[in-house]
Amino acid sequence: MNTKENTLSVFALGGLHEIGKNMYAIEYKDDILLIDCGNKFPDESLLGIDLIIPDVTYLIENKERVKALIVTHGHEDHIGGIPFFLKKLNVPVYATRFTLGLIELKLKEHRILRETELIEIDSNSNLTFKEIMVNFFKVTHSIPDCLGIVFHTPEGKVVHTGDFKFDLTPANDEHSDIHKMAEIGRDGVLLLLSESTNAERPGATPSEKMVGEHVEEAFIKAKRRVILSTFASNINRVQQVVVAAQKTNRKLALLGRSMVNVVQVAMERGYLDVPEDMLIDQDQINDFDPERIAILCTGSQGEVMAALSRLSTGNFRGVEILKGDTVIFAAGPIPGNEKNVSRIVDNLFSLGANVIYGSGSTSGMHVSGHGYQEDLKLMLTLMRPKYFIPIHGEYRMLHQHRSLAESVGVEHENTFIINNGEVVDIEDGSARQTRKIPTGNTYIDGISIGDVGEIVLRDRKQLSEDGMLITILTMSKTERKLVSGPDTISRGFVYVRDSEELLRDVNRIITRTVSDSKSGNKNQWSIIKQEVKKSVGQYLFKQTKKKPMILPIIIEV
Amino acid sequence: MNTKENTLSVFALGGLHEIGKNMYAIEYKDDILLIDCGNKFPDESLLGIDLIIPDVTYLIENKERVKALIVTHGHEDHIGGIPFFLKKLNVPVYATRFTLGLIELKLKEHRILRETELIEIDSNSNLTFKEIMVNFFKVTHSIPDCLGIVFHTPEGKVVHTGDFKFDLTPANDEHSDIHKMAEIGRDGVLLLLSESTNAERPGATPSEKMVGEHVEEAFIKAKRRVILSTFASNINRVQQVVVAAQKTNRKLALLGRSMVNVVQVAMERGYLDVPEDMLIDQDQINDFDPERIAILCTGSQGEVMAALSRLSTGNFRGVEILKGDTVIFAAGPIPGNEKNVSRIVDNLFSLGANVIYGSGSTSGMHVSGHGYQEDLKLMLTLMRPKYFIPIHGEYRMLHQHRSLAESVGVEHENTFIINNGEVVDIEDGSARQTRKIPTGNTYIDGISIGDVGEIVLRDRKQLSEDGMLITILTMSKTERKLVSGPDTISRGFVYVRDSEELLRDVNRIITRTVSDSKSGNKNQWSIIKQEVKKSVGQYLFKQTKKKPMILPIIIEV
Repeated sequence: MNTKENTLSVFALGGLHEIGKNMYAIEYKDDILLIDCGNKFPDESLLGIDLIIPDVTYLIENKERVKALIVTHGHEDHIGGIPFFLKKLNVPVYATRFTLGLIELKLKEHRILRETELIEIDSNSNLTFKEIMVNFFKVTHSIPDCLGIVFHTPEGKVVHTGDFKFDLTPANDEHSDIHKMAEIGRDGVLLLLSESTNAERPGATPSEKMVGEHVEEAFIKAKRRVILSTFASNINRVQQVVVAAQKTNRKLALLGRSMVNVVQVAMERGYLDVPEDMLIDQDQINDFDPERIAILCTGSQGEVMAALSRLSTGNFRGVEILKGDTVIFAAGPIPGNEKNVSRIVDNLFSLGANVIYGSGSTSGMHVSGHGYQEDLKLMLTLMRPKYFIPIHGEYRMLHQHRSLAESVGVEHENTFIINNGEVVDIEDGSARQTRKIPTGNTYIDGISIGDVGEIVLRDRKQLSEDGMLITILTMSKTERKLVSGPDTISRGFVYVRDSEELLRDVNRIITRTVSDSKSGNKNQWSIIKQEVKKSVGQYLFKQTKKKPMILPIIIEV
Repeated sequence: MNTKENTLSVFALGGLHEIGKNMYAIEYKDDILLIDCGNKFPDESLLGIDLIIPDVTYLIENKERVKALIVTHGHEDHIGGIPFFLKKLNVPVYATRFTLGLIELKLKEHRILRETELIEIDSNSNLTFKEIMVNFFKVTHSIPDCLGIVFHTPEGKVVHTGDFKFDLTPANDEHSDIHKMAEIGRDGVLLLLSESTNAERPGATPSEKMVGEHVEEAFIKAKRRVILSTFASNINRVQQVVVAAQKTNRKLALLGRSMVNVVQVAMERGYLDVPEDMLIDQDQINDFDPERIAILCTGSQGEVMAALSRLSTGNFRGVEILKGDTVIFAAGPIPGNEKNVSRIVDNLFSLGANVIYGSGSTSGMHVSGHGYQEDLKLMLTLMRPKYFIPIHGEYRMLHQHRSLAESVGVEHENTFIINNGEVVDIEDGSARQTRKIPTGNTYIDGISIGDVGEIVLRDRKQLSEDGMLITILTMSKTERKLVSGPDTISRGFVYVRDSEELLRDVNRIITRTVSDSKSGNKNQWSIIKQEVKKSVGQYLFKQTKKKPMILPIIIEV
């Protein structure tokens, strides 16, 4: 609950001290307005987890006040949590036409499209809630139809930038609303929330048009087929590939489910212009001469199941990489994906392909969608915020963004570097960090029959490193003694055929432990189990330096 | 066995199509001479594995012919496999004074120093084996005392470069033997094996002196303590830190076991010059003013247990990072380590430190020890090889290195891109790829009670992602029916408290499967186990999209 009557509260449920699962909230009296609901992909320490989404306990507790989910753009880290969220709390979703198209794909997959209220907006829309009026401005990013948001509250204007860069020559000629932004910021805004992804990178982000020029060059040079891999959602880049294919008189085939789906949404909704007879099915590829073919596919990040990875290992039914083909990675590897990308590059080279890869700055085939330092300073300059919360980034990015804000005149103490769940309250024009609401990670594992708890994850970690040892003790019901066994099974620990002696020793230790045990009657089995775990664990660690999970199972007869 | 009498054979047991576990061999009649024996660190798919070393089955089978292990330099990917190898095959080890110091540290740890024959060589040494004479040339790299090797065989000269760059202003003034190399290559060499690590990077590698200048600048600017982290073995960089500390009148403390050990070896053997009263113990750090202190520590790659990581989380006993301290990462993150490094940078910023990080080209605090394309072309130009085997790199690097060789005049068909175990035979001056010897990875797991097999790894992977379900069926010896149970336990699968219904269903399915089973007498338990695995597996996948390991255990009563 909000502590004060006339307090404007701002907080994040995800997106701070991390890249991913963006979700921010503006709260004033009876209104809670949400911005975005993204997911995040787990790192390798979260064994078996498929996705991470924000913990929305606070919103559920205050559900009668949650009025809207407003979505800035259609990237996974901004929309990927929506279906899971809506299943818990069905609120109206506001987004632009293209963004809605991508959200609808997800809702269909989760079978909740019909019961969801989707409201299309554009940069000219005005939304009115109880005491907050909302309008928008266009920003350029690596996906079409992106918005920044202005919340007109009784305390003043709060601006959320969404994800942006200032691309002054955007590939689709949809420019940032710089004049509108200047108008919004003319008398300053109360609070700015601005994204920090590239706050560490000096200079200004290059224009998407640069990629188009390099793609075209490569298409002209290529003597055989061109296979280009990029993010399906980067429709402006896809459009530039279409143009390059057209100029070099190539048919275009799409490989990979998300590429096919997103391109279809973009074409249907008027964000992508493909000549009528250019698209061909994948089983038509071999009907044309190699120099008449271009292929656009998923898998630029080395995803093992995506089209490019399967092509590189000869596992894509009906399509093969041939000697002399040109393969382009039109996307730099996101940190953590380098090894998977490299493996694919290796495979492609060994198939005889000419591979164009590497970071965008070396290959010219990628530019970031997120503003570098000069872009961020321009946003801060246009908005002239009194208070500033850097969002969308890990700590060092938020920290660097604060320095940038200071360099253009925001007072050091007026920047709040907060974490998810930490609330900034503004009252009578004055902001301070106050309470903390519950937040955290909700893990999606399989089809999410429930949140995966810490215990399950801890078990998986132990099992993954050292495996386990199951020992079955058949015990007499009446006396505290072994009737048969112990029978010991191991999985993921040691290769049993090489370790017969070790396992014989283990059984000997178990037998001794049971017969030496002085445990009384009460709970005696659980005490014996503890004693077995301890003695076997100590022995195995001494012998192997491993700590397998030890599971004594007692059968009473 | 060698197939022909007068054939010179060259092959790798590790180091090709990979970065790490370098081990190469030259074979002629009665002599097998080995070059290096490194280890490699596993990627995250090799769950629980500590190290990977070359499979040396072929050498064991031919042990009477293995005459020497010659070591080019003291990096882990060239010496890390030595103790494990020597335990299997005790051959004399030839290395320079500093390299021997590092090898001795390992042999002591493995308690095999006394029984190992260690022979000190330098760039002027000549070794004579039955029909092969060996001599050396100095190369510059990111560790002192590195050698390239020339094998004078009856077929001609075979040159192995070791790891190198051409640093024309090396920090220790120990220059590459360029004139000697020119002399070796004057009339061309038969075969060159040259390292390929940076074959993808255009230009020439910057000099180590560049790092020294940036370190000195940072030391001068720093108003409080400086904490610098780098590879312990980069003694020339350590020397430059010592000089910077001296110029700014700072005491120097060493944190981290490998930093202390390697610096000690370097000082004892005359590779590092530290002013007499500069070094202090870690518990003296707080006795001096912050601006009088420099700390040199391990952990530049984000290793969780290393000094810098522990400092960043406040877990280093007696030493704390204080507001205003300068922390320098004097090493770029190796691919795969970015996330761990970033986490530490975040922590350090939040402690109030001024952190200098990023790749060497942005921070100026790191240069590579491996030659870029111009360095590699210079080596090829000096040696003028007839045949060329690019070594020490993943496929794309070997591939790029071949292009570089072509650009300076090596015939395309005279470059052999081979894999570990693939043999190039040279006879009568003519080379071709012939047989294949057994090779592969030997996994070190714990203290290596045996090689970890594929089955153990596959089990660990399944356990790590989906956990397991153990179900105990107490069956009648005489009839095929359940006497009690099933009792089902899960670990790492689902959180049991939230999944009672699921587990009840599982038990119901097991009961039905057992009573429906039509299996005869012979091996009936194993058939029933299979049936239970199948029915439970199908049900769980449908319900949860997970595939836990299912272990039915049958107790006969």
